[in-house]
Amino acid sequence: MMTFAILKTDSLARLGRFELPHGVVHTPCFMPVGTQGSVKTLTPAEVAETGAEIIVCNTYHLYLRPGHRRVQAAGGLSKFMGWNRPILTDSGGFQVYSLAALTRVTDDGAEFQSHIDGSRHLFTPELVVEIQEALGSDIAMCLDECPPYPVNRPVAEAAVARTSLWADRCGAARQPGTNLFGIVQGATYPDLREQSAKSLTKLDLPGYAIGGLCLGEPSEVTYDMVARVAALLPTDRPRYLMGAGYPEDIIAAVRLGVDMFDCVLPTRNGRTGTAFISEGRVAIRNSRHADDQGALDPACDCYTCRSFSRAYLRHLFVVGEALGPKLLTLHNVWFFQRLMSGIRTAIEQGGFESWSSEFLSRYRPGAEPAGQENDR
Amino acid sequence: MMTFAILKTDSLARLGRFELPHGVVHTPCFMPVGTQGSVKTLTPAEVAETGAEIIVCNTYHLYLRPGHRRVQAAGGLSKFMGWNRPILTDSGGFQVYSLAALTRVTDDGAEFQSHIDGSRHLFTPELVVEIQEALGSDIAMCLDECPPYPVNRPVAEAAVARTSLWADRCGAARQPGTNLFGIVQGATYPDLREQSAKSLTKLDLPGYAIGGLCLGEPSEVTYDMVARVAALLPTDRPRYLMGAGYPEDIIAAVRLGVDMFDCVLPTRNGRTGTAFISEGRVAIRNSRHADDQGALDPACDCYTCRSFSRAYLRHLFVVGEALGPKLLTLHNVWFFQRLMSGIRTAIEQGGFESWSSEFLSRYRPGAEPAGQENDR
Repeated sequence: MMTFAILKTDSLARLGRFELPHGVVHTPCFMPVGTQGSVKTLTPAEVAETGAEIIVCNTYHLYLRPGHRRVQAAGGLSKFMGWNRPILTDSGGFQVYSLAALTRVTDDGAEFQSHIDGSRHLFTPELVVEIQEALGSDIAMCLDECPPYPVNRPVAEAAVARTSLWADRCGAARQPGTNLFGIVQGATYPDLREQSAKSLTKLDLPGYAIGGLCLGEPSEVTYDMVARVAALLPTDRPRYLMGAGYPEDIIAAVRLGVDMFDCVLPTRNGRTGTAFISEGRVAIRNSRHADDQGALDPACDCYTCRSFSRAYLRHLFVVGEALGPKLLTLHNVWFFQRLMSGIRTAIEQGGFESWSSEFLSRYRPGAEPAGQENDR
Repeated sequence: MMTFAILKTDSLARLGRFELPHGVVHTPCFMPVGTQGSVKTLTPAEVAETGAEIIVCNTYHLYLRPGHRRVQAAGGLSKFMGWNRPILTDSGGFQVYSLAALTRVTDDGAEFQSHIDGSRHLFTPELVVEIQEALGSDIAMCLDECPPYPVNRPVAEAAVARTSLWADRCGAARQPGTNLFGIVQGATYPDLREQSAKSLTKLDLPGYAIGGLCLGEPSEVTYDMVARVAALLPTDRPRYLMGAGYPEDIIAAVRLGVDMFDCVLPTRNGRTGTAFISEGRVAIRNSRHADDQGALDPACDCYTCRSFSRAYLRHLFVVGEALGPKLLTLHNVWFFQRLMSGIRTAIEQGGFESWSSEFLSRYRPGAEPAGQENDR
């Protein structure tokens, strides 16, 4: 049960609005990642304060701990974690391939051993839908096969075929009211991407994701694949580019008609001491911040930037205080939400191109601060 | 520069009010510990929301990192850490003895090697005052010699003598306006405690602490020492029992006329998964909480208890999410502030004895939850 409406377009860029069981989401949106039922270091109230309207959690992790039946008994994931807003759950396919010890993949499903205790499990398309329904996800994802980059053509072909087969079974298994998204695969082969998109759209699903990108391939390749796939997806359904997190990639994909994004970048980089600011990236441990009484990002009005100096933030990281990773995470999640609201406003005003040129003229993707990394 | 007024007494228990450079503090008070310039896992805004009006930071740690001159250049510690309220700094004497590699103690001072990089330093009474003045502490503590428990009489005697000598030098070194507290030592020897108290009160300092207790000695011994010392301290000066943190110890010491407390208990136990609640202590990892949809403490209105179930809090600890330690720390600090406000209200109403009987009839100091600790 969901509605998705395109409110405005600006060339291919789209301004949209979801109504989901747990609330409204404005697109283009960036979904912070809360893998295990927590956006790392942040309270749900803090996540909401950043402006985030939807987060991504993970089926694989929550199935293992605390278990989907336990979450269901608690009233569903959104209530369990005190978020009380929309949640998209990834199917766990990616984690089965990347994190667990994968023992066997057949058309039946993916057999794996838990990365926690080595216990054996089988993810079938049907089970993955059942788990996400028990979690009460606002948006559930089909089980897919996501090959690494680079991958040879026969493997990519097989993954496309299996992903289609599994999507069909996921669609058949779902309860009425489950908002199930398909995932387009095809690695970096244009014809396989097109084949996957055409096959999945036949299932008439409420939304489509583009998976298997942002895995290390050149940006031009990413954008080329996104452009080809987006052109084949129905214009009235949301489009979700999985794993895209760099601001320049998000802007490029919005330009190609993508509506939804998720990435661990703001949270993971925040924890390890890298902040995203208007001019690029800041490595807060750098000794050049030791006596800097200025804000992390003077253009930002998040709690971190309003309340603390770079000197203090650096101190927290240097001495290993948990508050440091938390304050940088909060800022980064805020930064990405501000980016998305900037994008939405620009589309609404029909000025996305000039807005993004202006943003990118200030923001230097590769810009890490000068000077030696220095922990003393 | 401070004023301290006793507003009300109830037998020996005292209701008081500080005016300090960074704000007002109501006593009896519990000071959360922010050793390195951060109450671990909490933002200053969260610490303030618990009702805490003053925190304790540490001279030893801040001298080593980021350095007191750096903090001074940033406008003082309270501003540097975004707290903007009163701070008491411990002298670092305790840390030099317990944490650093102590190389030599003479009447001149304590020579030690940093626990971080092995660098050599000498803490003299004069330097310790100078550091605390640079930090801009609302209350500075004298350098003292704090022997462990148990300790033989000659060592305890020498520590009393040196503590007096150093207090004298701290007093002479301080700038006008520095609120310097003396620290009574004497281990568990009644006559040495009395000798130390008499010697220090001759210095006419604005406040006095009782150090060298809560180090593992029986509670009856602690209370006996506190009673003897408190009887000798001037009634118009604040009294601070260093390191006392168990609710039953705080209540016992308030009954003996103590005004100020600090301890790592709420923060450290919160990080490791133990919560203080109205009935005693809860080990949140225990499997009996796995499906408990109730609040950690139904009688508590902190953010943690208002927003999350025991089942979710347990999940966070079991999977190792940073939000777990933070939410339990927040609750524990809140619990201790609620304890202190209960104590203050009871004294104000002249009902401290009945209030504390009632509190202690519910609260079981030793009560850990039944059942096996179970992380699965």
